[in-house]
Amino acid sequence: MPTMQDALATLIAYWTEQGCLTVQPMNTEVGAGTLNPATFLRVLGPEPWRTVYVEPSVRPDDSRYGENPNRLQTHTQLQVILKPDPGNSQELYLGSLAALGIDVAAHDVRFVEDNWASPALGAWGLGWEVWLDGLEITQFTYFQQAGGLNLETPSVEITYGIERIIMALQGVRHFKQIIYSPGFSAPSEGPGAGSSTAPGISYGEVFGQGEYEMSRYYLDDADIATNRQLLELYAAEAQRLIDAGLPVPAHTYVLKCSHAFNVLDARGVVSTADRAAEFARMRRLAGDVAKLWVAKRDELGHPLGIVQAPAAAVEFEISAAPAGGDLPRTLAFEIGTEELPPAEARSALAQLRRLLTERLAATRLTHGDPRFFATPRRLIAVVPEVAARETDQVRTVKGPKTSAAYAADGSPTKALAGFARSQGVPVESVRTDGVNVFVEKNEIGGAAPEVLALVLAKVVAGLRGAKNMRWNDPQLSFSRPIRWLLALWGPDVVPVAVSALAAGRTTRVLRAAAEPVLTIASAETFMETISINGIVADPEDRRDLIVSGAQELVYGEGRIDLAAEEALIDQITYLVEQPTPLLGTFDEDYLRLPEQVLATVMRKHQRYLPVRSDEGALLPMFVTVANGPVDLDRVRAGNEAVLRARYEDAAFFYRADRKRSPAALRDGLDRLTYTDKLGSMADRAARIAALASALAGIVSLADRATLDRAAALVKFDLGSQLVTEMTSLAGVMARDYALHAGESQAVAQAIFEAELPRHAGDDLPASLPGALLSLADRLDLVAGLAATVGLPTGSSDPFAVRRAALGLLAVHRAHPALSAIGLRSALALAAQPVEVSEQVLDDAAAFLTRRLEQALVEEGQPVDWVRAVLPVADRPSVADRLLYELSTLVGDDTFQNVAAAIQRARRIVPAGTPAGYDAAALTEEAELALHEAVTLVRADLDKSSSDLTHFTAVTSRLVAPITTFFEDVYVMADDPAVRAARLGLLATVRDLGADLLDWPQLQL
Amino acid sequence: MPTMQDALATLIAYWTEQGCLTVQPMNTEVGAGTLNPATFLRVLGPEPWRTVYVEPSVRPDDSRYGENPNRLQTHTQLQVILKPDPGNSQELYLGSLAALGIDVAAHDVRFVEDNWASPALGAWGLGWEVWLDGLEITQFTYFQQAGGLNLETPSVEITYGIERIIMALQGVRHFKQIIYSPGFSAPSEGPGAGSSTAPGISYGEVFGQGEYEMSRYYLDDADIATNRQLLELYAAEAQRLIDAGLPVPAHTYVLKCSHAFNVLDARGVVSTADRAAEFARMRRLAGDVAKLWVAKRDELGHPLGIVQAPAAAVEFEISAAPAGGDLPRTLAFEIGTEELPPAEARSALAQLRRLLTERLAATRLTHGDPRFFATPRRLIAVVPEVAARETDQVRTVKGPKTSAAYAADGSPTKALAGFARSQGVPVESVRTDGVNVFVEKNEIGGAAPEVLALVLAKVVAGLRGAKNMRWNDPQLSFSRPIRWLLALWGPDVVPVAVSALAAGRTTRVLRAAAEPVLTIASAETFMETISINGIVADPEDRRDLIVSGAQELVYGEGRIDLAAEEALIDQITYLVEQPTPLLGTFDEDYLRLPEQVLATVMRKHQRYLPVRSDEGALLPMFVTVANGPVDLDRVRAGNEAVLRARYEDAAFFYRADRKRSPAALRDGLDRLTYTDKLGSMADRAARIAALASALAGIVSLADRATLDRAAALVKFDLGSQLVTEMTSLAGVMARDYALHAGESQAVAQAIFEAELPRHAGDDLPASLPGALLSLADRLDLVAGLAATVGLPTGSSDPFAVRRAALGLLAVHRAHPALSAIGLRSALALAAQPVEVSEQVLDDAAAFLTRRLEQALVEEGQPVDWVRAVLPVADRPSVADRLLYELSTLVGDDTFQNVAAAIQRARRIVPAGTPAGYDAAALTEEAELALHEAVTLVRADLDKSSSDLTHFTAVTSRLVAPITTFFEDVYVMADDPAVRAARLGLLATVRDLGADLLDWPQLQL
Repeated sequence: MPTMQDALATLIAYWTEQGCLTVQPMNTEVGAGTLNPATFLRVLGPEPWRTVYVEPSVRPDDSRYGENPNRLQTHTQLQVILKPDPGNSQELYLGSLAALGIDVAAHDVRFVEDNWASPALGAWGLGWEVWLDGLEITQFTYFQQAGGLNLETPSVEITYGIERIIMALQGVRHFKQIIYSPGFSAPSEGPGAGSSTAPGISYGEVFGQGEYEMSRYYLDDADIATNRQLLELYAAEAQRLIDAGLPVPAHTYVLKCSHAFNVLDARGVVSTADRAAEFARMRRLAGDVAKLWVAKRDELGHPLGIVQAPAAAVEFEISAAPAGGDLPRTLAFEIGTEELPPAEARSALAQLRRLLTERLAATRLTHGDPRFFATPRRLIAVVPEVAARETDQVRTVKGPKTSAAYAADGSPTKALAGFARSQGVPVESVRTDGVNVFVEKNEIGGAAPEVLALVLAKVVAGLRGAKNMRWNDPQLSFSRPIRWLLALWGPDVVPVAVSALAAGRTTRVLRAAAEPVLTIASAETFMETISINGIVADPEDRRDLIVSGAQELVYGEGRIDLAAEEALIDQITYLVEQPTPLLGTFDEDYLRLPEQVLATVMRKHQRYLPVRSDEGALLPMFVTVANGPVDLDRVRAGNEAVLRARYEDAAFFYRADRKRSPAALRDGLDRLTYTDKLGSMADRAARIAALASALAGIVSLADRATLDRAAALVKFDLGSQLVTEMTSLAGVMARDYALHAGESQAVAQAIFEAELPRHAGDDLPASLPGALLSLADRLDLVAGLAATVGLPTGSSDPFAVRRAALGLLAVHRAHPALSAIGLRSALALAAQPVEVSEQVLDDAAAFLTRRLEQALVEEGQPVDWVRAVLPVADRPSVADRLLYELSTLVGDDTFQNVAAAIQRARRIVPAGTPAGYDAAALTEEAELALHEAVTLVRADLDKSSSDLTHFTAVTSRLVAPITTFFEDVYVMADDPAVRAARLGLLATVRDLGADLLDWPQLQL
Repeated sequence: MPTMQDALATLIAYWTEQGCLTVQPMNTEVGAGTLNPATFLRVLGPEPWRTVYVEPSVRPDDSRYGENPNRLQTHTQLQVILKPDPGNSQELYLGSLAALGIDVAAHDVRFVEDNWASPALGAWGLGWEVWLDGLEITQFTYFQQAGGLNLETPSVEITYGIERIIMALQGVRHFKQIIYSPGFSAPSEGPGAGSSTAPGISYGEVFGQGEYEMSRYYLDDADIATNRQLLELYAAEAQRLIDAGLPVPAHTYVLKCSHAFNVLDARGVVSTADRAAEFARMRRLAGDVAKLWVAKRDELGHPLGIVQAPAAAVEFEISAAPAGGDLPRTLAFEIGTEELPPAEARSALAQLRRLLTERLAATRLTHGDPRFFATPRRLIAVVPEVAARETDQVRTVKGPKTSAAYAADGSPTKALAGFARSQGVPVESVRTDGVNVFVEKNEIGGAAPEVLALVLAKVVAGLRGAKNMRWNDPQLSFSRPIRWLLALWGPDVVPVAVSALAAGRTTRVLRAAAEPVLTIASAETFMETISINGIVADPEDRRDLIVSGAQELVYGEGRIDLAAEEALIDQITYLVEQPTPLLGTFDEDYLRLPEQVLATVMRKHQRYLPVRSDEGALLPMFVTVANGPVDLDRVRAGNEAVLRARYEDAAFFYRADRKRSPAALRDGLDRLTYTDKLGSMADRAARIAALASALAGIVSLADRATLDRAAALVKFDLGSQLVTEMTSLAGVMARDYALHAGESQAVAQAIFEAELPRHAGDDLPASLPGALLSLADRLDLVAGLAATVGLPTGSSDPFAVRRAALGLLAVHRAHPALSAIGLRSALALAAQPVEVSEQVLDDAAAFLTRRLEQALVEEGQPVDWVRAVLPVADRPSVADRLLYELSTLVGDDTFQNVAAAIQRARRIVPAGTPAGYDAAALTEEAELALHEAVTLVRADLDKSSSDLTHFTAVTSRLVAPITTFFEDVYVMADDPAVRAARLGLLATVRDLGADLLDWPQLQL
């Protein structure tokens, strides 16, 4: 069990052995080792770099006064940069764990997708969290961009979270209990030399007071005005230094900016708008620093040299006589990768299927039905019975027209001679089909290895991920690095060469296997060999193993809700190559935590399957799926400790939160800025309350008491620690805390429902008070942001205005009781601290209309219907009802006739013609009849109703008269007065139901 | 040859083996490892602490764009703290050098006095620079105070200068050439993996660009207004955090203050007053932080425990029969210390001599003549023929008076009974001498070991240094720690016990000796034993070895100027225990540097003896004196490299300076602030020039051209790099650079002389232009500072106003040509940018008068004479002349009579009586005669002259008339008019010469 200082020394020694240069931590506060110039600057440009260093990383926002067992304002990172990517960085990394004394075969070490991005640095990369028995111990990233510059030579960044690793190794439950050093006595000194008598010096003894005091500073005592001034001074100095062409000191000041910003953030005074503006500024400064650095290194002639990309793989000669002989053999093709994200692996499997199928079809190799498999680390195609050679073929090449090929005397023209020459045949071999001349060429089929090599190379080069990355390969790009190719046709290597990769007959199995690299004798034995060595290549097999294994583990204890966990199980299927489900438990005390907290942690954070009783209640256990033949007890213990720590965290927050009343938490919203122009979160909550109350008046809500109380508390849980930590629990915790504080079920539910829907497809508020609050919340957001930062355009929507819009539409639609609420007037009611002009309200209403249109279309409503109901888009629930009515009415002749009549009237009447007419000018019978009918219909129509069925019934009386009218009456009479009256009469018909439907849109 | 990163790892591993805890460097810029809280805070209070860490130390002022081979804006310190002092920290330290592969026996490793103080931290300590073959590689300090608090548990601080050590180990001449790491290839990787092909990665490759750019920032580009604001913001935040009771974040802000200040300093905008004010503020803040920290640790109950002081030594029982027998034996007494500073060792030797002599005399032990010796590590007393026992004695104890002892009847009184009882004798044994009663007690002499033990313990406890320190001993205090006591009387250990120290029979010789600890059989063999083992205990012997050795080494080549180097030789004598002189050389190219530069470096920085030709010119060689039987070639090579580096530094500056004209350097003074209220150094130089010119007018200087040119350049060398580096060369370099630039010898000399005298006893300006400039310089300083910060009071004199005052007095006195210059009016001429009120001028003049008075008295002038000449203190050279005249005149009757007459007149005339009189009111002969004589004398006296001899000659004519006057005339006549006239006449006599002497002061 190493002390923490031993562990740091061991890791540094390990990586210096690997050629890493050690530097010191940055001498200004940084939030991560990435910010140290030894990373941020050195990953830029073409020079090689390898470094290892410790970086105490300061995250003011993580301050917890040293009370939280796992959260520190300064935690210790150990940072490694390998540039260029050495091609085996994962293996090197595992070596470092072994150096720490971790038996990587006994433990469950996994690379779990985690893509990293730092908007403030203009940097991103793809990679993983490394999990040790479920504990995230390392961040592993291939840098793709930094300072806004694409990295032609990607670096591998490995960031160890030292406290976590040590807590796991030492088996302690609070960071303060970490044994940091063995104690002050030299081995040669006896006790009593005045030194501590403890078995060692604990982390708490060394850093505890600092942790408390710095937490105090960041959370409570940092002077806000001072730190704002510092931020500005630092930014200005950074800019000055950029202007002076000095990237190194400029970078230092960018870091100081970043820290000052983080301090302000921890003090809770950074609004969303501030954040966006500061990130933009920092990104710009960091980008300028990066560009300057690159230019300076160019100027200096790259003192550390220039990285040479690996040479392209040589396409070796195909053996004239493949060992496979002339008979069909199996093709086994494996693309070995570093751990693919589950979605990417699935997508890659589909691509492999498509690409290989298409390309094989384009050859003349006969073959059996291919099968395709994928795991996190490999894509496999197995094609049985691939012929040894392509079939030969005769290929016809068309030449000039026959008429142009031969002169009148039948002699070949120059054109023919040229064609023959170009085809390498004598003129005599050219034949004609009457229209054109042509030649026929016999084409001998290629040998399988040769043909397959080209096919497979193109398949590999054609793979694309949703998000692609570069590694040390000079040309390839994919979701994660491709590290090896195995391609065998029977016993023969198919000589695939793609960029720097050449296929061979070796594959790799589990990294911790006794023999991690295997040589495959022939394609026919490939699947069996890897299977024997633990790789379950077929995702369906893995899924079965997971499901059956999990069920077996919980049998008699509880059950796994397979339907509810389907997505999670799909994900797990692509997290392991050899599923090893195991059952863990947790202290049932934690069951006192809200179920959503427990489940969110298990599913989202840990990818554990929750276990439930027959009644559906959570049981204090979980199933996790390890990869490979691990030491079950150790892995179980590790995972249990991780879950315990996470629950301890949550329980810590939960207890602290429940000690405060909802009102007190709500008061804390004062300190959370919403946006700089729109005030605090408390202001926003007050506006939501007022607006909900106003809307309640419109809909004549009966239960005002519930609404009033819920409105007084709405959003209070944003002031709680648990929600600050797990934002997805907003509303859920509000309900819990409100009930705990003695609020009524109805009030608690309404506060919860105010947050619904949280995402597309989420539940909607069931109660009317909840719906009103939810609506008010989203109306306030849209109105305020439309008036200040503007409505979202393009893909950028930092404040999620679109989601709010969709939410409010959904809520309105879900509650017919809300149909009296018009959205534009409701937006106008949402009194903002800034002026909201009519133009803004119009734009916002139009924005909502477009969102409604999209939503309805996406739900499968016919586009013409949707367009037709947009006149009532201001009241989405009305639009819904109209659509519902339409779905019945469109099959109804009456409706069809009414619609046709109205549409016909519209087609005839020129635009702009008013609806009135001088009845006295009407003389013909048909027109008088229509006049009469119209008069009656108008009298019977309820102007305020939006009942389309009623409308159809009433207006059906027009159908006959109007038909007659069109048959008998020539509208465009010579007498202008008559013409005007007739057009006016038709315009009146046209306008019937104009506030219900946009009739011309209806395609009946 | 370790790479730099290896060396750091080795040292950290070594010290962690010694129980040190590793921490990370501070994550804000610090100037030294001492500032890291792991030192600054942890050395406070009673808790134990041991740590080792690397600290990149940022010294903006050391920025050199990476061009200087030895100077960096960020250098790497390795810091070790041992608390409590383990008692063997020097030995542990030597072990660390051995761990680095340094053969400490072959090299000359020395601990050379260096007392450390950080005014800004309120911290100080005593200790050493550690020299490796003349190179300072480590700072070694016993902390005594930090944050203004006395450290009850002193810590040992060991600070390695890593770049210097590595440059020495790797034998490179520029820090950029240091091999920092072995290169980017892991051992298992072949070449061509894109890594550098260099044998290793150099320091320059890793840090070169940063060194250049940060230098640019600190020297040229740091925004001054920004850094001023930062300084204020940081200080305010520190204060706020102190008020909030949070020492840890407050400390961080104190460090940020310190760095911002250093940046401003490097930008050359910190005035002397700013510096004083900032240091005061930082000292106050640091003090508050320290107090808070101590209070918090008390509150927390000292989590790391409390250091237990070593137990007091037990006084063991004296053997009843000492092995030494009954015959007299030698006493050998040795007090072993860590390296004492030379002056302290000499003083301690004197104390030992006095204390032991006195205390031995107070015993009844007969003994021979003691001898005393001292080296840096030991004080020795050897006393031959110390008797085995004290002689017995009869002691008389006096009791009450006999009359009170016996009643009238002769019976004993109660008083007598009480006395007898108190003496433990029967009443019958009491006798009387007539006056008192007494008893006689026989006292048996003590055994030598017993008696000596008490004597020696008191001697040890009585030692005091000029500056004393504490170490791990609970009671002792001395210049440096006392580590062992050897005390033998013949073969017997004298059982001395002082605090935790107990004497024994072991001694220590050279630390690198094969057997560093020896056991001594008997006192008689002690001196011989240590001598055989290399210790030359007698300073005279060491001095002889040094002188003769040095002379032998240079024989035939040159000579050592023994007279001139006497003080240095005295110092060297106490730097070594076994002098090993060796001759080193340096490149004769360096002889182009000014001799003062070469000699200052050799003497002051390196303690080398310069070698001169018979003509007195420096030769390119030096003698250094190593300690013990070192490897001469290695030590020579090391010392030569050190000197080369120092000369290279100086040459670097010298070349750079000479490239700029004096005028250009002078222009640079614009950027040096003198004080905030008194402008820049350029302003000050201009004022000096103007004042010198005005003074020249007063003294009618003939050679105005020389003065004008010198005045135009005066102080220009303060803008040079060499003087910035070695301030003691101010003036010297000015002369050199001026001559180089083609100025005349006279001008160059005058500029040089402007700086004289630089300290008490220094040369004074020889030329009149030089004297005028020197005077103007000092008058300007006194006037300006008196008007702004005020004249010095108490011991604080940060601007050295007293030294300036003494200097200007000395210059005035040295140049009778300046006698026309009155100091007060000259001060008034020194036009300052601030108002200098009459009051300030009066005060300043009075201040100068007091300094003159002191100086004259200290020179041995009779106090009454000095007081008598103070009326001309405004013109010190006149005062000098008057004193000279007095020395002749006081033996002269005429003068005595004149003085007596004037004094008599003063005694009679009431104070305030004006000197005029109505001659018509005089009637008596005697008074008329006096009137006549006075009238004649006044006519003959030259009012403007200050020639006392002339005055005496003229006024001698008054002696007879005044004598007659006093005999014949009753001054206090009844007639007021007569009385007034008589008093007026006497007052006129009284005032004769009042502007020459303060006659009443003269005691003749």
